Amino acid sequence: MSDNTIPEDQIKKWEKLSSSLALPEPWFRVRKDEVRLASGKVIDDYFVWESPTIATMVPFTEDGKFVLCEQYRYAVDKIMYQFPAGGVGKSESPEEAAKRELEEEAGYVAEAVEPLGDSAAYPTKMSGWHHLYLAKNVKPTGEKHEDENEPTRVVLKTPEELWAMINANEFQVADSLVAALLALKKLGY
Amino acid sequence: MSDNTIPEDQIKKWEKLSSSLALPEPWFRVRKDEVRLASGKVIDDYFVWESPTIATMVPFTEDGKFVLCEQYRYAVDKIMYQFPAGGVGKSESPEEAAKRELEEEAGYVAEAVEPLGDSAAYPTKMSGWHHLYLAKNVKPTGEKHEDENEPTRVVLKTPEELWAMINANEFQVADSLVAALLALKKLGY
Repeated sequence: MSDNTIPEDQIKKWEKLSSSLALPEPWFRVRKDEVRLASGKVIDDYFVWESPTIATMVPFTEDGKFVLCEQYRYAVDKIMYQFPAGGVGKSESPEEAAKRELEEEAGYVAEAVEPLGDSAAYPTKMSGWHHLYLAKNVKPTGEKHEDENEPTRVVLKTPEELWAMINANEFQVADSLVAALLALKKLGY
Repeated sequence: MSDNTIPEDQIKKWEKLSSSLALPEPWFRVRKDEVRLASGKVIDDYFVWESPTIATMVPFTEDGKFVLCEQYRYAVDKIMYQFPAGGVGKSESPEEAAKRELEEEAGYVAEAVEPLGDSAAYPTKMSGWHHLYLAKNVKPTGEKHEDENEPTRVVLKTPEELWAMINANEFQVADSLVAALLALKKLGY
């Protein structure tokens, strides 16, 4: 079902002609590429943030509560709720990273983990993907590995309370929000 | 309901001590800030991408179809589906930008527009917000303003077809996916 303004299979990829580092910082690496667009036009300064691959875990307890993290986010200068999430290390899979973040940030362990899908935060300019997971029947370990750079308050919410937060525009971190909505659907709420 | 690892209201903001431009490009402006964390620790190179404010429109036709755009996204090197979306200009509101993008990218016009909420794509490092809208009863104008840098194929999907795409991990742009899930819920699908 389509109005076929452009025939199927006619959206074409671009060609990378050359590439250099515009910002060679280990914590924020930006490439400047010379690219040939599908139209043939050449742009000599297309910037791409080589952003980290992220794993995000929706933790759901046996008694039916989501485990949320409240943290300060500097770039938007706001204290926000989200799920445990973080960068995937070189020696781990995204699923392993999601389980590790759950344990470090929230102090919970997962048994079975199921994938919810993948999302791209800003795919014109950011190369990294977010891999989203749901873990049912998570259990508290009694400890978490507090990162002094990222103090975290752990909060438990029922599905009804999480829906109320979403509808009140109080749960706004995009990858966590995608994961929340997919998990709520999957869990039947 | 909380396990109170940190008391409520105890997550603190950081203080910006100084700021300079690390990448002063008009299309990709990155700040380097010296910041004092809540712990008192000072970091002298915290990078923030001053990313654009984005408006995203979920268009829904009178006969019950979503209007999607298929476009190439260079940073992830993938042809992807999403809703009409783009940067908010200085002289327009986010809602006006959403209506403009709907007309330019998809060739549809909106009557009544309702907000779906706001999301932050990567709030530790990106300053920009995404403002999400739903427009019911959108109508084709018969023309769109093709941008040679961003060829767009417009595709119509029923709610059931959109759910199938989401479940098959074929609708992955984060802000569009958030907006899709909120719109599907609101419309009763």
